[in-house]
Amino acid sequence: MKSFRKELWFSTPTRRAYINITPQVEQCLVESGINDGLLLCNAMHITASVFINDDEAGLHQDLDAWLEKLAPHAPVSQYRHNVGEDNADGHMKRSVMGREVVVAVTKGKLDVGPWEQIFYGEFDGRRKKKVLVKIIGE
Amino acid sequence: MKSFRKELWFSTPTRRAYINITPQVEQCLVESGINDGLLLCNAMHITASVFINDDEAGLHQDLDAWLEKLAPHAPVSQYRHNVGEDNADGHMKRSVMGREVVVAVTKGKLDVGPWEQIFYGEFDGRRKKKVLVKIIGE
Amino acid sequence: MKSFRKELWFSTPTRRAYINITPQVEQCLVESGINDGLLLCNAMHITASVFINDDEAGLHQDLDAWLEKLAPHAPVSQYRHNVGEDNADGHMKRSVMGREVVVAVTKGKLDVGPWEQIFYGEFDGRRKKKVLVKIIGE
Repeated sequence: MKSFRKELWFSTPTRRAYINITPQVEQCLVESGINDGLLLCNAMHITASVFINDDEAGLHQDLDAWLEKLAPHAPVSQYRHNVGEDNADGHMKRSVMGREVVVAVTKGKLDVGPWEQIFYGEFDGRRKKKVLVKIIGE
Repeated sequence: MKSFRKELWFSTPTRRAYINITPQVEQCLVESGINDGLLLCNAMHITASVFINDDEAGLHQDLDAWLEKLAPHAPVSQYRHNVGEDNADGHMKRSVMGREVVVAVTKGKLDVGPWEQIFYGEFDGRRKKKVLVKIIGE
Repeated sequence: MKSFRKELWFSTPTRRAYINITPQVEQCLVESGINDGLLLCNAMHITASVFINDDEAGLHQDLDAWLEKLAPHAPVSQYRHNVGEDNADGHMKRSVMGREVVVAVTKGKLDVGPWEQIFYGEFDGRRKKKVLVKIIGE
């Protein structure tokens, strides 16, 4: 069994952001030399997400507005977590979108559908945060 | 390490549908000859889901009504993604239900609880779409 | 490839509960002797969740109130699943929070971020239910 591990770092200028990280994840796979197995990609912070969806700007605006409706940021005083913090909504938004994706690796490629793109979802940005890529296989 | 890969295809007559695919996934496991490891089952389309829940028709009606309340289909004009499309809500419903499940394989069986059943959740059907089953182990 | 499997059992006195199970999962990893690989931790019941978030009591109160707003328990008659049962909302709450987490194992440790803690989320408690820990690697 071969194994590969790499951290990817992100710092977004805005509180919320959606970044297509598929090229970086594909680069990890190339570096790993792994041809067949499973790839885990997860946020290492609890107000961020790694998810798979469409790379379409309108959809990202829709997702952002929808998440803000499901778990509004303001008023921050509505959340008990916000004692010296203001990111309770980020924990909820990330719960909806999920922490991680597991992707099959086949013939040295990400074994994904034609429209599947891997995104970093940031819900409490403006600081450095990291994503883990772990691959096991042969 | 052994590895197995198979695509399952679905085409539902309705926009939304919930199909118990546990028998097909179990059949993949038999074909794989893998006795111990991990099984990934994921939608390869971004308006569909693979999830685990109860095989009970009332619950599926409840889930469907609940998802429609959280992310309504109509009016389609409320979503910026719907430029020449009408499936923005499907992207959101799938975000709630998740893209994939990872299931343990033990002694040649899906290592699941007594009520756990694997479902394909369709949120923009009426066309052929596929699910990936990938198994690694020994 | 090495493999490890263990069930963890929980019985909460309340309908809903959030329990930090990171120490038990770490203990499984020690018992496994696995140094590098992937760890799956999943609820084996369909009204429970395993998720990763912050171990902060205010946040857990926020998550609980938020889940109750998204998928209210009462009136139980609003759900078709509740024929002789009253836990339809638990199926929905668990859908939001997710069934499972997959965590990288590196150098014999859970390869997680500084604030990542693994939780058992119970949405229909007051009876014995189990969580599966499965680890594969070397």
